[in-house]
Amino acid sequence: MKLIYTGKTKDVYALEDGNYLLQFKDDVTGENGVFDPGANTVGLTMEGAGKAGLRLTKFFFEKLAVAGIPTHYIDADIEKATMTVKPATVFGQGLEVICRYRAVGSFLRRYGMYAEEAQPLDAFVEVTIKDDARQDPPISEDALDMLGILTLGEYKELKELTQKIAAIVKDELAKKEIELYDIKFEFGRLADKQIVLIDEISGGNMRAYKKGEYIEPLKLEQLMLED
Amino acid sequence: MKLIYTGKTKDVYALEDGNYLLQFKDDVTGENGVFDPGANTVGLTMEGAGKAGLRLTKFFFEKLAVAGIPTHYIDADIEKATMTVKPATVFGQGLEVICRYRAVGSFLRRYGMYAEEAQPLDAFVEVTIKDDARQDPPISEDALDMLGILTLGEYKELKELTQKIAAIVKDELAKKEIELYDIKFEFGRLADKQIVLIDEISGGNMRAYKKGEYIEPLKLEQLMLED
Repeated sequence: MKLIYTGKTKDVYALEDGNYLLQFKDDVTGENGVFDPGANTVGLTMEGAGKAGLRLTKFFFEKLAVAGIPTHYIDADIEKATMTVKPATVFGQGLEVICRYRAVGSFLRRYGMYAEEAQPLDAFVEVTIKDDARQDPPISEDALDMLGILTLGEYKELKELTQKIAAIVKDELAKKEIELYDIKFEFGRLADKQIVLIDEISGGNMRAYKKGEYIEPLKLEQLMLED
Repeated sequence: MKLIYTGKTKDVYALEDGNYLLQFKDDVTGENGVFDPGANTVGLTMEGAGKAGLRLTKFFFEKLAVAGIPTHYIDADIEKATMTVKPATVFGQGLEVICRYRAVGSFLRRYGMYAEEAQPLDAFVEVTIKDDARQDPPISEDALDMLGILTLGEYKELKELTQKIAAIVKDELAKKEIELYDIKFEFGRLADKQIVLIDEISGGNMRAYKKGEYIEPLKLEQLMLED
């Protein structure tokens, strides 16, 4: 087992059978000790964050499998905080695909002239480039196509998959009377070129609210996984 | 004649017949005394900039009329540095529509991970919101539609018009062995809802190069309008 990548919130190891092992860490993104799913830096370390994130990821990836939505997920070991996944290559150097149900975060910072805080949005999808040095700029489907990152057909598929997956997460949260405001995903291509959801679906990927109050990732994971 | 708006590079007056008069000024956008068509501040004042900008605008708007492309242009008085135009309403609080033939400026600042400086781009169109406080953020067609600024059909029309107009400008520059790198336009709706090009087409709207050397707006206007 060979360490091939050290990420902000997880490490990636190559397994001998060709699959990969993701080691979830207790680090979460944010700034100055405050959690922010849109941040590019590790803001704080929370004991148990890795395992809690993995438990929620396992929960959602298994729901997606039942719904017939392709992901890189194979299985998870909660005790060790590891997840085994199929090998996938990302688009370009990696993209984030965001689905928004309410106007918060970078959407509001960009379009505040036309949107009010927490205004409902109709499963709005946008893509940003993973590029810490350039603050993850948003990119249009025409630019993705022209720069050879995604074809227009792949963009359409990605957008549809994003809206389907976000709707499943939203429905699961709604069962606990929690409202999903926005969520970000990563996608990749399997060896056979199929586009699949990769990475994780945990509290760190989304903004969730209960009775108008923001719920921290660890609290969200606890609320979602208690009986 | 009533002053109704004071802009960075021109003032707008309402005429008694319902049309508008644009008074071109000698101020150009930039920062710290250096011209930058992408800037939101007046960077410097150049004597004759207003008249030169108007002369080039008149030249291009008359070319567009011949090509059957709708604009707000009625006529121009070079001596007074004024242009008479039809009334038009902008989309939302105003948009800028950019057409790019080479990767420079904000495109390169955003997508430098995937593009090299001056790399050819295939008449790439993007829209930014006119919002000085938020540094004119780019916006996707889906966001324009969702926020009620433009419908998807209007976006398509705007993109096609932009590519047609940019091609005409590019061809005119090429006759003087000048290469158009990028250009920005503004559009509006006439009373009958027709989408037309508004504002101006002058050196301040574009980046043009000759033998790999950037040409300043005043120099460009001089090169384009000499025999």
